[in-house]
Amino acid sequence: MKRIADSTVRRLSVYLRFLEDSVNRGVRTISSEELARRGGTTSAQVRKDLSFFGSFGKRGLGYPAVELTAALRDILGLDREWRVLIIGAGKIGTALAQYHGFRQRGFHVVAVYDADPLKVGTEWEEHTVRDISRLESDLASEHPDIAVLTVPGDEAQRVAERLVGAGVRAILNFAPVQLHLPAQVTVRNVNMAMELEGLSYALTNRERETNGSNGVDGAA
Amino acid sequence: MKRIADSTVRRLSVYLRFLEDSVNRGVRTISSEELARRGGTTSAQVRKDLSFFGSFGKRGLGYPAVELTAALRDILGLDREWRVLIIGAGKIGTALAQYHGFRQRGFHVVAVYDADPLKVGTEWEEHTVRDISRLESDLASEHPDIAVLTVPGDEAQRVAERLVGAGVRAILNFAPVQLHLPAQVTVRNVNMAMELEGLSYALTNRERETNGSNGVDGAA
Repeated sequence: MKRIADSTVRRLSVYLRFLEDSVNRGVRTISSEELARRGGTTSAQVRKDLSFFGSFGKRGLGYPAVELTAALRDILGLDREWRVLIIGAGKIGTALAQYHGFRQRGFHVVAVYDADPLKVGTEWEEHTVRDISRLESDLASEHPDIAVLTVPGDEAQRVAERLVGAGVRAILNFAPVQLHLPAQVTVRNVNMAMELEGLSYALTNRERETNGSNGVDGAA
Repeated sequence: MKRIADSTVRRLSVYLRFLEDSVNRGVRTISSEELARRGGTTSAQVRKDLSFFGSFGKRGLGYPAVELTAALRDILGLDREWRVLIIGAGKIGTALAQYHGFRQRGFHVVAVYDADPLKVGTEWEEHTVRDISRLESDLASEHPDIAVLTVPGDEAQRVAERLVGAGVRAILNFAPVQLHLPAQVTVRNVNMAMELEGLSYALTNRERETNGSNGVDGAA
């Protein structure tokens, strides 16, 4: 199967949210222009994104909203429940375990783990934090699909290898390191400080541009 | 100035983290191969990424670690303090306001806002949650650089417009909507459910591939 860029998959998620809102408001057809506006892209890009997955809609009539919604949910794998582990019961892990947006999309947090004896056994809404030493034995019977990794950077690689060894094939990594894992494991990285660095980069280089300085692009 | 892709800026952040660790361990030179391994890319891509910003290192000798670290910090705008607002005192907002990784990189959370009277006035470590009605008057004297938006989706556009009207030029958006703002405003989007959808997409389409089904790419 053709490899689809992450950026395309992200736009499909944005289109889907807009389509679901529209269907709830009773809208029957959606134009590629409307999807483009919501997705921050062009209508040509919308048509290209959708064309990877088949032929939707009729030229000039727009896309049928209910059918395209169903197709995107199918493409994104959202017509089933996914079993999610949270590894690391810190502040970010706590916020994610209690995040209602996950459950709405079919992502069910089944367990939370930590290595800290002070955290193990504490209650978070429906979860009791489990000892990470139990990871392999639990996974052998529970078969989670996705792990969210919110452990310190110097532990992330080792914990990720344990997860993969126990059968996990998808990891959402919040640790500020690049994980080295077998090719059949899909990893997405989220790093809050790096997101802010993207903004400080933009602010800094806009200022340099405005000031006429060549501090960056004028170097040898 | 040449427009640099977000993916390049993200890799610069990854290289910088590796360089800082290396300098702390006393390493003097770093090869493009080492940076590539850390950044999950190729050494040709590393050389290309760095070439946008000037000429670093000598052929065959690697990059001088201290100098390249300083250059990347300068490029990313990390040699100053950035004043950050958190808008929305929910679980994600709370976790971010207390996240020590921000302060280490020069991102200083100066204030937290919410519209909920039950949250306004509550204390979080060093912050007292402020009433969002004060936003414009506070910003006129405080001049924050970056706003982190963790409000519900149906409020995000309106709040973002208020921030931009008050002078904010960079927004990290956690609300699950595409913001429509003037071109001089830089927005980065973080959506936890969409990150998980990227993983469910990968798991689903790998399964389809494995099963020999043509459910996706075989459509008309």
